[in-house]
Amino acid sequence: MQGVRPVRAERVGEWDLEADVVVVGYGIAGVCAAIEAARAGADVLVLERTGGWGGAAALSGGWIYLGGGTGLQRALGFEDSPENMRVFMTAALGPQVDTAKIDAYCTGSVEHYGWLVDAGVVFKEEFWAEPGWEVPHDEGLGYSGGENAAPFNDVATPAPRGHVPQMSDKRTGVRGAGFKLMEPLVDTAQALQVRAEYDMRVRALVTDGARVAGVVARRYGKDVAVQARRGVVLASGSFAYNEDMVAAYAPRLVGRPAAAISEHDGAGILMAQGVGAALAHMDATEVAFFGDPQMMARGILVNGRGQRFIAEDTYGGRIGQSVLIQQDNQAYLVMDERAHEEALGTETSTPYFRQPPTWVAETAEELEAEMGLPAGALVSTVAVYNRHAAQGRDPLLNKKRQWLRPLEGPIAAWDMHGFTAGFTLGGLRTDVHSRVLHADGDPIPGLFAAGRCTSGVCAGGYASGTSLGDGSFFGRRAGVSAAR
Amino acid sequence: MQGVRPVRAERVGEWDLEADVVVVGYGIAGVCAAIEAARAGADVLVLERTGGWGGAAALSGGWIYLGGGTGLQRALGFEDSPENMRVFMTAALGPQVDTAKIDAYCTGSVEHYGWLVDAGVVFKEEFWAEPGWEVPHDEGLGYSGGENAAPFNDVATPAPRGHVPQMSDKRTGVRGAGFKLMEPLVDTAQALQVRAEYDMRVRALVTDGARVAGVVARRYGKDVAVQARRGVVLASGSFAYNEDMVAAYAPRLVGRPAAAISEHDGAGILMAQGVGAALAHMDATEVAFFGDPQMMARGILVNGRGQRFIAEDTYGGRIGQSVLIQQDNQAYLVMDERAHEEALGTETSTPYFRQPPTWVAETAEELEAEMGLPAGALVSTVAVYNRHAAQGRDPLLNKKRQWLRPLEGPIAAWDMHGFTAGFTLGGLRTDVHSRVLHADGDPIPGLFAAGRCTSGVCAGGYASGTSLGDGSFFGRRAGVSAAR
Repeated sequence: MQGVRPVRAERVGEWDLEADVVVVGYGIAGVCAAIEAARAGADVLVLERTGGWGGAAALSGGWIYLGGGTGLQRALGFEDSPENMRVFMTAALGPQVDTAKIDAYCTGSVEHYGWLVDAGVVFKEEFWAEPGWEVPHDEGLGYSGGENAAPFNDVATPAPRGHVPQMSDKRTGVRGAGFKLMEPLVDTAQALQVRAEYDMRVRALVTDGARVAGVVARRYGKDVAVQARRGVVLASGSFAYNEDMVAAYAPRLVGRPAAAISEHDGAGILMAQGVGAALAHMDATEVAFFGDPQMMARGILVNGRGQRFIAEDTYGGRIGQSVLIQQDNQAYLVMDERAHEEALGTETSTPYFRQPPTWVAETAEELEAEMGLPAGALVSTVAVYNRHAAQGRDPLLNKKRQWLRPLEGPIAAWDMHGFTAGFTLGGLRTDVHSRVLHADGDPIPGLFAAGRCTSGVCAGGYASGTSLGDGSFFGRRAGVSAAR
Repeated sequence: MQGVRPVRAERVGEWDLEADVVVVGYGIAGVCAAIEAARAGADVLVLERTGGWGGAAALSGGWIYLGGGTGLQRALGFEDSPENMRVFMTAALGPQVDTAKIDAYCTGSVEHYGWLVDAGVVFKEEFWAEPGWEVPHDEGLGYSGGENAAPFNDVATPAPRGHVPQMSDKRTGVRGAGFKLMEPLVDTAQALQVRAEYDMRVRALVTDGARVAGVVARRYGKDVAVQARRGVVLASGSFAYNEDMVAAYAPRLVGRPAAAISEHDGAGILMAQGVGAALAHMDATEVAFFGDPQMMARGILVNGRGQRFIAEDTYGGRIGQSVLIQQDNQAYLVMDERAHEEALGTETSTPYFRQPPTWVAETAEELEAEMGLPAGALVSTVAVYNRHAAQGRDPLLNKKRQWLRPLEGPIAAWDMHGFTAGFTLGGLRTDVHSRVLHADGDPIPGLFAAGRCTSGVCAGGYASGTSLGDGSFFGRRAGVSAAR
């Protein structure tokens, strides 16, 4: 990664472009920073590396994690409060979440929802009640983090917080929910005279000794020096596609990156490290798991030793994290014929995960032998599950009663070993004002950041929507801070 | 952490002290760097924060991980090769070990053993063959990383690599094996005219624009500027006692730090970050587990769900890592009366871990009820274990045959929930010449590092002796490089 070392301002000579606030990256964090900086009176220039705005956000599923009693939650009859949201996020996204960020995020979430709506983001008043990675149509609200499953349904009152911008035509990617989040925000920014330059690959920060004073970008083989009179906002995404950084910080993700765009190469993190930035939670990763939630809830998941390990009706990303980090990337889904048929009769946003089973058998004994598990390993797991399921209980993992029924008759298993992929959640350490912190704990003058190049509300766990959520929320704060 | 930002050389004015090579920290990495720098003709000054040499090394158990066919291994009849050692370390210390470091370490290990012996370190030609955290007397060699247990005994030929300097009087800490490693090395350094200044708390690096040119240290409330004409070697230890860094990088270790000295506060890492240093594997931790290996090998370990999860005869540090990271810090040891009595009849280095059981019962059914486990959870685990143990097999986890016997008759369990503590393994990214790498991948001129302020041979896993091992091995290289 050549060129991440800072450049001294006196070496720049002439500035090619100038602005009060320079935003690096035109994804969710960048557009929100640009809007707020412009509203604060700053002349704003966004530098985007690709040929157009959108970033990973525009290609994403569009979940945005909001709560505490948003208009949409209330309209659909769900009770929530900032405190309830805080309790859930603290339990689910740790260990050791940034409590100041979580507090700010939960306290500000209702306002943030209104801000998005005011900017033109549309959330349809319809709730998707079934397990799923995404909503199957254009529903506006759903569970996206396991709020309604063990162990969190015992810790906080379940409330769905996955808000989904209404899609116009789900089947073409660029008209999906993520696009429908970004489009009105970019329109808003443009109406505020935010300028954007494309094909600008920012390669170094410029410092004048006291502060970050601009950036040097590469365009068409030439360096372009861009002055930032008030501040630079880094909003350049994760390091999921930087193989070297993934190997060094989040090694279990090697070979399985899954950010929406491959520009997520950690460049913003590295440039900030060049001026002494602190990092946080560099090992944390979102982990997708290629299983259909409608199927998983109706079966049992076992690890490579045939043991259950998680409530199967929880958020799929929790299953993915447990499989990759705690179960050595090994998992099997086991269902009886009746449960499988029931699952196939449901609606899902991920029909392509409904593959035929790897093994089928008449009994659990036969199945475990076919799977190559030690004799008794799976049989005893099924027996203990069945014993309690017959009473509508799951004392081992507390899967909800609605999904509990003894496995009987013909039984099948799916080999889900290695069915994981994800993106990185660690990055620059910022404060609640989105100021990038130096290793000594103080802000680096002139440097701000938000989105997945920072460590946000997720310290270890994940919920769908927290990336667009903290990217937009702290992106706005980055814009406000930089414009000062 | 005030003052970790680099100081510009022009602000220093007069240097209070000068040397060719300035070594920060007089533990294992520091003393080895000092020796090699002095032998390369450099004038060497060691700055130590406490009142005397030793660091964590002098208070440690003294294991030093060496192999590939050392004189001690051969004298005691063990076959080993650099390649065999490389295969084990790659499998056990990952995922994603630094292959260049592992290769250098394994290729150079026999020479390094000779270097230590030549410096006066004594290894007694006696092998300790039993499971244990340390050797109970003054034996010189033992297994220290699970080389002779599943899954590694199937991947590489088991060879003990834990080399222990001979102790003169085990019962007083400062005469333990770690001290007996450090003492002759410090004598060697002193004979080479290495100077040392104590009570010097280094608080910042000094840069002259092109390179690291010295350090500023605090002594008795005053700043002391120390010029390093050729280079600075950071050998200042881990960040186990920096609560803020542990929370941000290795959150599962919060509240359970266990480095030998509390000076391990990450200061060296932070100072190097101030000049743009890259980091690696900041989440990795050694994890001690407060269980007696002689007991664990003879029982079964189950997690909070009553499930076995690891071959109980492996290295205790692997058990600790699994408990803390993969089993949510929950574990129970289960033994029958006969196994317990057998274990109590053995010799151990950790008799204080032999506490009375938490629960005792006549049957597994009674025991699981007393423990509050779901009905059938532990009973089925014991039944599957017994079924195979009766045939001398453990297909679930491959514990060695010598430890396998069905659990029968009165049975007891020990609650080992939270029985973990450890130190951090992540830190500065260095190359095989111990040059500190910038975030852009190139070396930072004038800056070198070794020991636990760097990410060494352990990317995730651990074996006892790898810290003194890579600290000494790459400490030497830091001295050579800095003296150039």
